[in-house]
Amino acid sequence: MRNYKRVVIAGVGLLGGSIGLGLRQRGLAESLVGWGRNLEKLKVAQSAGAIDEISDDLALACSEADLVVVCTPVQLVPDVAVTASRVAPKALITDVGSTKAKIAKQLEEVPNFCGAHPLAGGEKSGSEHASPDLFCGRTCVITATETTSHAIQLRTEQFWEGLGAKIIGMSPEQHDSALAMTSHLPHVIASCLAGVTPSELLPLAATGWSDTTRVAAGGVELWEQIIAQNQQPILKALQQFQAGLEEWVEAIEADDQQKLIELLRTGKQIRDSLGN
Amino acid sequence: MRNYKRVVIAGVGLLGGSIGLGLRQRGLAESLVGWGRNLEKLKVAQSAGAIDEISDDLALACSEADLVVVCTPVQLVPDVAVTASRVAPKALITDVGSTKAKIAKQLEEVPNFCGAHPLAGGEKSGSEHASPDLFCGRTCVITATETTSHAIQLRTEQFWEGLGAKIIGMSPEQHDSALAMTSHLPHVIASCLAGVTPSELLPLAATGWSDTTRVAAGGVELWEQIIAQNQQPILKALQQFQAGLEEWVEAIEADDQQKLIELLRTGKQIRDSLGN
Repeated sequence: MRNYKRVVIAGVGLLGGSIGLGLRQRGLAESLVGWGRNLEKLKVAQSAGAIDEISDDLALACSEADLVVVCTPVQLVPDVAVTASRVAPKALITDVGSTKAKIAKQLEEVPNFCGAHPLAGGEKSGSEHASPDLFCGRTCVITATETTSHAIQLRTEQFWEGLGAKIIGMSPEQHDSALAMTSHLPHVIASCLAGVTPSELLPLAATGWSDTTRVAAGGVELWEQIIAQNQQPILKALQQFQAGLEEWVEAIEADDQQKLIELLRTGKQIRDSLGN
Repeated sequence: MRNYKRVVIAGVGLLGGSIGLGLRQRGLAESLVGWGRNLEKLKVAQSAGAIDEISDDLALACSEADLVVVCTPVQLVPDVAVTASRVAPKALITDVGSTKAKIAKQLEEVPNFCGAHPLAGGEKSGSEHASPDLFCGRTCVITATETTSHAIQLRTEQFWEGLGAKIIGMSPEQHDSALAMTSHLPHVIASCLAGVTPSELLPLAATGWSDTTRVAAGGVELWEQIIAQNQQPILKALQQFQAGLEEWVEAIEADDQQKLIELLRTGKQIRDSLGN
C-alpha cells in the first residue's frame, strides 16, 4: 500500500473529511493538509481529526504534496486541479466530483489528474458526519480518458482501493449518462416531490414520503452545479422517467388492473434486486 | 383504558401482528384471535405471540368478539366488516386501510364501524416484522362520517390511543385526497423510477437511488388495490407532480441557474421541515 508524505484535501466536507480520517486510520499519510474557503469548516475538520493543518493558500499547500484530492463542488474542480498540478507536477491529483465529462474535458492537458467518483455520501454534509470507513465496500468509478497515462490511472485506483473502495472503470461520458439515471434523476424527482407537497399535509407524511424525498435535503449549491454540469444526460433520463410516468397515468385512468400489477411488479423486481 | 375480552384481527400481517403484540404487551386483551385466508401466515403470527387462536371461519371467530380490527387488503375490508357486524353488532369494528372513501361508502349502513388509517408500516410486510410499539407516537387518522355515532367514534379513538397513536380526525374524502399526495404519489414515483432504471446500472446506484425507490419493494397486490380505490385523487396528485417536473425540465433545458436554485431550495425547505 502506498504511503503519502503530504496529502492536500481541497474542500473538507463529508467526503474530504472521510478521506482524511480513512488515510489516518490506515496509517497511509504522514501529513494531512486541508484547504478551503471556509475557515470554520476547516476548523471543524481539524477538531474531528480529519486534517492536521489548515491552509488558505492552495499553491503553497500543494507545493510539496504527493497527493491532492479535490473535494470541492464540481464547478471548482478544474481550477483547483490546474493550480495543484502547476506546483506539484509529480503529485497524483484526483477528485470526488459527481459529474465527470466536463471536468475531464477541462483537464485534458493536466497529465497527473485522473477523475474519480466514489458512490458514497448521502443527505448529511459536513466533516462532522465523516467516517474513516465511508468508502469501504462502496463503488468508486475511475474515469480515465484517452490522455490519462496508465501510471496515473493505476495510482488513482490504488489510492481509492486503499480506502476500501471497489473500483469500476468507465469513460467520463459513460459515467455521466449512468449517474444521470441512478443519482441525478432520483435527486430531481425527490426534490420535485417535496416541492409540490403542501406543507400542511406533512403531518400525514409517513415513511413512504420521507424515504422518497430524503435526498432533497442535500445541499442546494452542490446539486445546482451537478445538474448544470450534466444537463443533457439528465434531460434524457427525465424524458425516460416522464414516459414511464405517462404509462402509470394511462393505467390508472383506464383502471387497468393488469397493467398496474405489471408496472408495480417491474418496479418491485428491480428494487428487490438491489437489496436494502 | 378499555380492556377487550375477545379481539379478532382479520388479516395478520405487519399491521395486524403489531396490533396483537401491542394489545398483549399493554394487557388490553384477554383473548386474541387471528383470521385469514393463509394458514401459514397465521401460524407465523401465532408463533410470534401476536395471536392466541387461529380461525378460518370469520363469522364464528367474530360471534363473541367485542373488537374486530380489519387488516386485510383494502378491497376486502367492506365484506369482512359486514360479516363481523352481522354476528357481533355490539363490537367495535375498525380497520387500517390506506384508502377510506370507498370503504366508508360501502359501510354507511354498518353502525358499529369506524374507519382508521394508522400511518405506520413500511416496505417490510409480514407479522415476523411486527412490533408492539409500531403505532407509538405515529399519527392515526380516524375517518368518522355523518352516519358514525359519537360513541363509536370515541371507542375508535380510545382503541388507537391505547396503542400509543396520535389521533387526527378527517372525513374519508379529505383523507384520501391528502394521502394521495403524501403516500400514494410517492409510491407511484418510487416504483416508476425503479422500473425505468436499467438493471445493468444498479451497481452505480448509491443511497440516493435506494432511498428514493425504497417503497417500490412494497406488496404488489396491496398497492394495486390502494391505487384502484383512490383513482381520482391519485391522478390529481400525479398531475401536480407532472406539472412540477415540467418546471424542472424547462429550468434544466434553459440552464436557468436561479430557477434551479429556487426549485432545489423549495424542495429542501419542505423536506427539512419534516426532519429525518
